[in-house]
Amino acid sequence: MKTTEIFSKGQKVSINFTGEAWLSMLSEDIKNLDTTVYNVTFAPGSRNHWHSHPYGQILLCTSGEGYYQEKGQPKRRLKAGDIIEIKPNVVHWHGATPHSDFVHIGITPQASRNNAVWLGPVSEEEYESY
Amino acid sequence: MKTTEIFSKGQKVSINFTGEAWLSMLSEDIKNLDTTVYNVTFAPGSRNHWHSHPYGQILLCTSGEGYYQEKGQPKRRLKAGDIIEIKPNVVHWHGATPHSDFVHIGITPQASRNNAVWLGPVSEEEYESY
Repeated sequence: MKTTEIFSKGQKVSINFTGEAWLSMLSEDIKNLDTTVYNVTFAPGSRNHWHSHPYGQILLCTSGEGYYQEKGQPKRRLKAGDIIEIKPNVVHWHGATPHSDFVHIGITPQASRNNAVWLGPVSEEEYESY
Repeated sequence: MKTTEIFSKGQKVSINFTGEAWLSMLSEDIKNLDTTVYNVTFAPGSRNHWHSHPYGQILLCTSGEGYYQEKGQPKRRLKAGDIIEIKPNVVHWHGATPHSDFVHIGITPQASRNNAVWLGPVSEEEYESY
């Protein structure tokens, strides 16, 4: 599935992801707004590592088809228009399905104290399981 | 200009706007995330009143053509892909151009203490001036 993107694709991400992904920072005025906003593009099959955020995160899905999974829960399938609210300290990952790109906007509230805690790759078995 | 929207149009807004506009709340988990995210759709010529936010706001423009103006500054013309970072307490308005719809996502950080301060309508003279 290919769609025209609203925001730029940005730079390739090199750590804490499996497969090819791109990150474009849209807003990062920590001083005045204490919030970061960014566009993430996942190639088919790519995903980020298991991680959590001490103050949570919001995802706005804008194109393609993706997955979101919280530790111990089944994967959720995502498409454009879906919203994910990730509560503080919930361990999870997100990424593309095997045969589609996936693009979401990410919003990190309280960004000055909300660095992600990275917990290692999502295995092929975890990625493929239901 | 008409485009396919990613997020729902929501309900018509009845106060603090001139002309027809629609609001759809996308995320409002104040307790866990203290952030609200919403989609705003402006009919051609419509705009919100002059206002400010004690902790600022971020706009992500997703379709159509709009304006953003800070008090005492010239209007800025907006299109899909543009980002506006509004600093705390800056008096401003946003809306559609006369001949296009305009859609943006709005992000309100620190939402529990960031209610907008509304300051009255943008006059026809202000809307039409450069």
